[in-house]
Amino acid sequence: MKEYELITLGEVMLRLSPLGYERISGGETFEKRAGGSELNVASGVALLGLRTGIVSRLPDNDIGKFIKNRIRFVGVSDDYLLYDQSDTARLGIYYYEMGAAPRKPSIIYDRQNSSFAGLDLGQIPDEIYGKTACFHTSGITLALSETVRETAVEMVKRFKAAGAEISFDVNYRANLWSEEEARNVIEAILPYIDILFISEETCRRMMGMTGTLREMMKGLTQAYPVKRVCSTKRTVKSPKKHDFTSTIYDVDTDRYYEESPYTDIDVIDRIGSGDAYVAGVLYGLLKYDDPMRALQYGNAASSVKNTIPGDLPSSDLAEIEGIIKNHNATGYVSELNR
Amino acid sequence: MKEYELITLGEVMLRLSPLGYERISGGETFEKRAGGSELNVASGVALLGLRTGIVSRLPDNDIGKFIKNRIRFVGVSDDYLLYDQSDTARLGIYYYEMGAAPRKPSIIYDRQNSSFAGLDLGQIPDEIYGKTACFHTSGITLALSETVRETAVEMVKRFKAAGAEISFDVNYRANLWSEEEARNVIEAILPYIDILFISEETCRRMMGMTGTLREMMKGLTQAYPVKRVCSTKRTVKSPKKHDFTSTIYDVDTDRYYEESPYTDIDVIDRIGSGDAYVAGVLYGLLKYDDPMRALQYGNAASSVKNTIPGDLPSSDLAEIEGIIKNHNATGYVSELNR
Amino acid sequence: MKEYELITLGEVMLRLSPLGYERISGGETFEKRAGGSELNVASGVALLGLRTGIVSRLPDNDIGKFIKNRIRFVGVSDDYLLYDQSDTARLGIYYYEMGAAPRKPSIIYDRQNSSFAGLDLGQIPDEIYGKTACFHTSGITLALSETVRETAVEMVKRFKAAGAEISFDVNYRANLWSEEEARNVIEAILPYIDILFISEETCRRMMGMTGTLREMMKGLTQAYPVKRVCSTKRTVKSPKKHDFTSTIYDVDTDRYYEESPYTDIDVIDRIGSGDAYVAGVLYGLLKYDDPMRALQYGNAASSVKNTIPGDLPSSDLAEIEGIIKNHNATGYVSELNR
Amino acid sequence: MKEYELITLGEVMLRLSPLGYERISGGETFEKRAGGSELNVASGVALLGLRTGIVSRLPDNDIGKFIKNRIRFVGVSDDYLLYDQSDTARLGIYYYEMGAAPRKPSIIYDRQNSSFAGLDLGQIPDEIYGKTACFHTSGITLALSETVRETAVEMVKRFKAAGAEISFDVNYRANLWSEEEARNVIEAILPYIDILFISEETCRRMMGMTGTLREMMKGLTQAYPVKRVCSTKRTVKSPKKHDFTSTIYDVDTDRYYEESPYTDIDVIDRIGSGDAYVAGVLYGLLKYDDPMRALQYGNAASSVKNTIPGDLPSSDLAEIEGIIKNHNATGYVSELNR
Amino acid sequence: MKEYELITLGEVMLRLSPLGYERISGGETFEKRAGGSELNVASGVALLGLRTGIVSRLPDNDIGKFIKNRIRFVGVSDDYLLYDQSDTARLGIYYYEMGAAPRKPSIIYDRQNSSFAGLDLGQIPDEIYGKTACFHTSGITLALSETVRETAVEMVKRFKAAGAEISFDVNYRANLWSEEEARNVIEAILPYIDILFISEETCRRMMGMTGTLREMMKGLTQAYPVKRVCSTKRTVKSPKKHDFTSTIYDVDTDRYYEESPYTDIDVIDRIGSGDAYVAGVLYGLLKYDDPMRALQYGNAASSVKNTIPGDLPSSDLAEIEGIIKNHNATGYVSELNR
Amino acid sequence: MKEYELITLGEVMLRLSPLGYERISGGETFEKRAGGSELNVASGVALLGLRTGIVSRLPDNDIGKFIKNRIRFVGVSDDYLLYDQSDTARLGIYYYEMGAAPRKPSIIYDRQNSSFAGLDLGQIPDEIYGKTACFHTSGITLALSETVRETAVEMVKRFKAAGAEISFDVNYRANLWSEEEARNVIEAILPYIDILFISEETCRRMMGMTGTLREMMKGLTQAYPVKRVCSTKRTVKSPKKHDFTSTIYDVDTDRYYEESPYTDIDVIDRIGSGDAYVAGVLYGLLKYDDPMRALQYGNAASSVKNTIPGDLPSSDLAEIEGIIKNHNATGYVSELNR
Repeated sequence: MKEYELITLGEVMLRLSPLGYERISGGETFEKRAGGSELNVASGVALLGLRTGIVSRLPDNDIGKFIKNRIRFVGVSDDYLLYDQSDTARLGIYYYEMGAAPRKPSIIYDRQNSSFAGLDLGQIPDEIYGKTACFHTSGITLALSETVRETAVEMVKRFKAAGAEISFDVNYRANLWSEEEARNVIEAILPYIDILFISEETCRRMMGMTGTLREMMKGLTQAYPVKRVCSTKRTVKSPKKHDFTSTIYDVDTDRYYEESPYTDIDVIDRIGSGDAYVAGVLYGLLKYDDPMRALQYGNAASSVKNTIPGDLPSSDLAEIEGIIKNHNATGYVSELNR
Repeated sequence: MKEYELITLGEVMLRLSPLGYERISGGETFEKRAGGSELNVASGVALLGLRTGIVSRLPDNDIGKFIKNRIRFVGVSDDYLLYDQSDTARLGIYYYEMGAAPRKPSIIYDRQNSSFAGLDLGQIPDEIYGKTACFHTSGITLALSETVRETAVEMVKRFKAAGAEISFDVNYRANLWSEEEARNVIEAILPYIDILFISEETCRRMMGMTGTLREMMKGLTQAYPVKRVCSTKRTVKSPKKHDFTSTIYDVDTDRYYEESPYTDIDVIDRIGSGDAYVAGVLYGLLKYDDPMRALQYGNAASSVKNTIPGDLPSSDLAEIEGIIKNHNATGYVSELNR
Repeated sequence: MKEYELITLGEVMLRLSPLGYERISGGETFEKRAGGSELNVASGVALLGLRTGIVSRLPDNDIGKFIKNRIRFVGVSDDYLLYDQSDTARLGIYYYEMGAAPRKPSIIYDRQNSSFAGLDLGQIPDEIYGKTACFHTSGITLALSETVRETAVEMVKRFKAAGAEISFDVNYRANLWSEEEARNVIEAILPYIDILFISEETCRRMMGMTGTLREMMKGLTQAYPVKRVCSTKRTVKSPKKHDFTSTIYDVDTDRYYEESPYTDIDVIDRIGSGDAYVAGVLYGLLKYDDPMRALQYGNAASSVKNTIPGDLPSSDLAEIEGIIKNHNATGYVSELNR
Repeated sequence: MKEYELITLGEVMLRLSPLGYERISGGETFEKRAGGSELNVASGVALLGLRTGIVSRLPDNDIGKFIKNRIRFVGVSDDYLLYDQSDTARLGIYYYEMGAAPRKPSIIYDRQNSSFAGLDLGQIPDEIYGKTACFHTSGITLALSETVRETAVEMVKRFKAAGAEISFDVNYRANLWSEEEARNVIEAILPYIDILFISEETCRRMMGMTGTLREMMKGLTQAYPVKRVCSTKRTVKSPKKHDFTSTIYDVDTDRYYEESPYTDIDVIDRIGSGDAYVAGVLYGLLKYDDPMRALQYGNAASSVKNTIPGDLPSSDLAEIEGIIKNHNATGYVSELNR
Repeated sequence: MKEYELITLGEVMLRLSPLGYERISGGETFEKRAGGSELNVASGVALLGLRTGIVSRLPDNDIGKFIKNRIRFVGVSDDYLLYDQSDTARLGIYYYEMGAAPRKPSIIYDRQNSSFAGLDLGQIPDEIYGKTACFHTSGITLALSETVRETAVEMVKRFKAAGAEISFDVNYRANLWSEEEARNVIEAILPYIDILFISEETCRRMMGMTGTLREMMKGLTQAYPVKRVCSTKRTVKSPKKHDFTSTIYDVDTDRYYEESPYTDIDVIDRIGSGDAYVAGVLYGLLKYDDPMRALQYGNAASSVKNTIPGDLPSSDLAEIEGIIKNHNATGYVSELNR
Repeated sequence: MKEYELITLGEVMLRLSPLGYERISGGETFEKRAGGSELNVASGVALLGLRTGIVSRLPDNDIGKFIKNRIRFVGVSDDYLLYDQSDTARLGIYYYEMGAAPRKPSIIYDRQNSSFAGLDLGQIPDEIYGKTACFHTSGITLALSETVRETAVEMVKRFKAAGAEISFDVNYRANLWSEEEARNVIEAILPYIDILFISEETCRRMMGMTGTLREMMKGLTQAYPVKRVCSTKRTVKSPKKHDFTSTIYDVDTDRYYEESPYTDIDVIDRIGSGDAYVAGVLYGLLKYDDPMRALQYGNAASSVKNTIPGDLPSSDLAEIEGIIKNHNATGYVSELNR
């Protein structure tokens, strides 16, 4: 058994958001939170009961310390955090504003030249590669800087070589890189990926695939040695009301796993709900190696994350299993946990 | 005419709830409120214009003083509050977290060994029994401790003997006592009850009754000298959207009173909405002795309570009557009270 | 080209509202904002990119200074603010409480004897009349006091004489004056109005007109030299969910301009959404002299204002045009501005 | 024994103050509190354990209801509150900003034409005059309006006639009336006063007296049938650090009562500390008829009030007696109440 | 080398405190923090760079989870936290109110029957005793319940037997047990203590010792095998202004270590400053085995803790060393860390 | 007469500070403010009644819009704000934490690569140079980037050529550049400076001067065509208590202007108090060309700024003159502005 069941790699940012429905351009207060796709994943898995850590790089000052403390608060090990003591050390920031129909939620990024963008392979301790059962990162990390990209790709290879399963969330962001640039990089690492998260739209547009979603998912496992492909389906009825479900294709059983969608989710904060899905799925696969349970955990974890302020999930196993049970319940269900 | 139109008996707790949709397990602030079923009832009736008091027991310290002040703030007399000066004096607490689909609201109780749980009949001034037109308590009070149960049962008998009407809300809580224990106690006091509040589910499960709701309601008046039975019907579309209505069966007229439900209630805080119903009904009965008006007051008071943060109602008579009027309006209705 | 594209005349008040769904009668904090129909209009137009100012009168103290600063904050010139240094100087106030079904939003006004109510023509610098392309005021201003009414009517005439277009929003408020009083005053200024905002209900009840809305709108342009009549249609599904659209009748083209409604608007704060409509329409007319664009700007500006806390709009041109584009979009639309 | 030990007469206002050291002209939030000299006195006496009420007049709306609830919250009876249902009903307001050297605290009043200013003798129920052992009002009340002045003077006479002791705090405010106007009115009611509160500066400037403070105090009891004269001495080292003590002259014993000052009081909110002094003195006189104890209660109540946010005191008897004990302690004193 | 440098044993409570200078009996919000003497110590040492853990017992619910997360947030391992799943599980609470002269800070405890009070030796994993270089607990733990006392005493013996240094802070609290009861228990464990923290007053009153402080400190090392005795000296000029220093007596060198006091400390929150002292001293001893450095770390850590809201320290090594450096500086010192 | 009396050049940053005495590394909220030395100066002068503008460069997004609105809020013209529409546009940030003895205030800067750092002369409209009576910038601006330095130096020359007085605050910051680098640049622009602000310590260390302060001040006017040299003297008794005064040397009169210090200033927020001094002095010189009045305005403006939260001043002329009057008062001074 490895020391960690999951290690992730990614940038952790300071998230600044106005209170309630206030605007970035007004008000006198910002909520101050930590967030970042791969931290969200590591935290989601940790809350469900597995031991997780994150590789990230923070400025060696008080705002970096804030992030470190939040990482610990959500149950993720800080053993592989790196600290940037240079004069140019800085923490990436993003500003987030909630939406209300017909106003969409908005994000402004200020993450260039962050300490994480200078993460170099040489800074990572060699011992790490043998420490985990699974390694996860995302397309965001690959897009942040040339340095980080090289670091990440090499880490994927080393973890793979050391026997870890590799999980990867494509998470294509048009504001970070072009479709072509992304496609080239992602195609280069697909040979190392075991568990792949990709949306239908990204399959079509960035990857240039055609056919039904199911055909594209299976196609990816045929072109590459990917064992599971997971794809979420979110229906945005309004900024405050979503439906959500997903599909997992599993090579071994050659089956597509699905369940009825969660409907009329009360969206309090949709940021991180995709990462919560990844966390739920990884938990199901790492703990039970069962795609159907993974799907259920993923859908429940993602749905309930939408109701939690901030990027980070806060649901433990009992809560997630309660939500799955309610989702499948047919008779009387109490409206209150007492 | 009596000095009070209503005296209630019950525990008042400190309610601690995180802000907005935050979790009990996170955040840095708690809203600090007072609440308790029988205080909520006394306050609802007081706001509508009748003179009410509460018998309760508080620790003789600053947190007890907070509760006393809040009781006065909501218009209920503090003349029958008792103060516990012992070393073990404490105020019961409950933690409350809001829900948002698919997350349910949650409550954690920390009320054991409270000062109220030590309320002994000997502490109650004898003069009280002749002071009120109506006395109200609930099944929660009966379940809190052996001492309180004996006190409450004896108080019911003494108020009855002194000529007060007795109102009782079964309010069965599975986390406080078993169905069998509850049934035995409640059957023992039903001979003293004039106005009974009971849900359909409690009739079936705890009381072990069968038949339609109407049959069970009438059955209770046949088995016991109860004069009015009131039963609410809440439809939970989501934690933030409910429908609500109720039925009153009146022995004298042998009629069932009902009205069309309030629909699409925007639930801000559902705690205390059942108590607000009791308050509305008691106001209607105490002031007008008219089951139909009681039903209207009860339904309106309960519906609007759902929109008020905290356990305690805040609607005066003008507001409740405005809501009833809108509920029954057919033509143009202004969207704004100006 | 004039120095200002729009100058408005109106009272600016201090708005005090409890946090969230709290009540005016409870809580310990008020949000402190500036608001007033004609400031809302001037600000909406300024945010879209035109130069605007407001004629108003404030007490010469720190609370007046707060208002002055907020006026500048929202991009409106303070060059024509007047300061009342008398002993009786005061700022009008209104208290606002949000609604949630079945509770309506409520407003309590405390604006009598405000410094604005003493605004006298002699206080206005003569130079102002030649400075603007358009002048706007509303029926609220006419209703505030005898002094203000005379001032406003005379200003309408002088601006008209100096070549400005005159815009007027009837905005009938039954709590300020009677229908008869309002009708007399408004009929007296209609000969000077170029752009008229009036609701269907006001046409019927206060103006005593009959026929369809379209007939009444056209009728007004036949009885008076009004060039454009604009009428909004708000459907209140609940205090938190509205639909919204409008009609503009244009004399020159003899056409009625309309578009499909904005539906299921998430209402965070509906105050000022009518003024945002006026601002959008005025922007469209002043910038493009195009009733269809004016209609689109007005509907979008009003819809999105409902999602902004406070009276004042906060949407710039890019946001409004994004909302119009989404409203008319047919294919895939991103749920997030990134 | 009378039903009340103290009834006061005075205006209760809404106090709006920015958070912390923010300015009235900035920020986005106001603290919302109730305050008014005579309410502060009634509340201070009630907290110490005597039964008190207040005669005041509030607008019959939600902001008036807020004040009514706060009055009850602080333990004062609302039985003699009057409600103004007219169109012009309004609550007086004052804005308060804290000081920090070299910035002084600031107050802006907006209390003209309040509902209280229209308080007419005819509105007061006749029964009230026999209900109390003591009646208290202040020079502020006399200065508010002609109507209120006549009402107050007549009430003083009627309470006196009914056997109540009359307490009066001169509390001269130059922004409300001239020295001459004040002197005339106050000289007219001095024949009815038993307990008089007056500062040295007011003796000299407004009353035109000369000599030492002691001479002036005694002089007042020689010119009028006043039995006790109380005069406070506040030394303002900085807005955040005061010293405080007082002198009471008692006719019966022909003695001056004094004690060593409270030094280095940490001033959190100095508003209402003068009223807290009056409350402490009245408690001492009403309960024990002992000028020395009255002096101690007054000095302690005033000193500790400076540490309490808001106008209203919050100290019960145990706290005041603890403070007196510490003030006189010589040996080891715990730094913490545990 | 051991896995932990320090393990502590103690109760962790929920601390509820009103905002700013508000009172427990007023206001609508509580700050929600974690605190407890031995957690404060473990956290202080962890922040300075050593690996620490805590043995405590929490209710297995969301409020227990809050505490667990805060423990991790401050850098202390949660590996030895125990969870109480019984029906009576509860978290101890204390209410804290700040002081301002002449008002003292106040604490109300509500910690009886907490899950920690039921901590039984059998719940502690046997492996723990060999895991740490040092074990620390306090007299508070010994006073909480019979069960906890037995557990703690036995743990002291087992850790001692396994080779850990034993640190003990007498921390006598008169509200928890009598002097006699305390003396008996503490005398029974003194044979196992290596590092002892005790105040002069406790030496005299609870331990019944006489002589100078230095004589009493040395006397304890003569009567028992204690190697270092540490005693703090706090001078309370006002609730907001303290001086602080301490003495350490070291048996090996037979010397008393002292330094000039920190003067005019701006006390924001004095709770936990004694624990911060213990943490600083333990860090100095565990890291450098140097009583003088231990004294400096202790005095600096305690002084600066007074400026930090909440029980828990937040100073890392760089900050503490900066404070020591300033304390000893003679020339120009920048007023700002930039 | 010019359109502006003062135009400044400088970076405006987002300032993020935890509430009260919380730490950057903890808490969940940041206060969100605008600040920057030259904005602070422009705002201080504008509040005193002169027309001012600022040349700065902001990202063209919502966070830039926030800054723009704040600039207008404090009365400074936004006519010369420039907007950066590039992908790398960002706003400089600084984190600020308050101090309390023995904890110093702390600042963390994150301002590298800001939009302002890319400010190029070509972006500045040529018309600006003739528009103002005075131009002000500081050594911070010169230190930010090579580009900005060149821009600033050239702007100094062009404003000088166009007839403006040049004001310059050396404001040496060791974290931005070395002493040598600073000296070279500043010596190069001293030939263009009319009004110079420099501290004694900077004279000695960065400029390498010797002698008394007075000798160094005069020396600067002899080596360069500077007409007035101003030097402040701040005595930091604790982070919360300062004394302040200054010296101005005037070439024309060959005199040193001084006054007795403001003592025991209650420091709420010391950031920007140096800039407030500059603003007061510039106001005095621009309005009255009187060094003594300038000194008084400067000292008063600086002293009172310390009591205002945030970087930006908020004192108008009446307040500053009141503070000067109190500072020089000898007899009775009211403790309250009523």
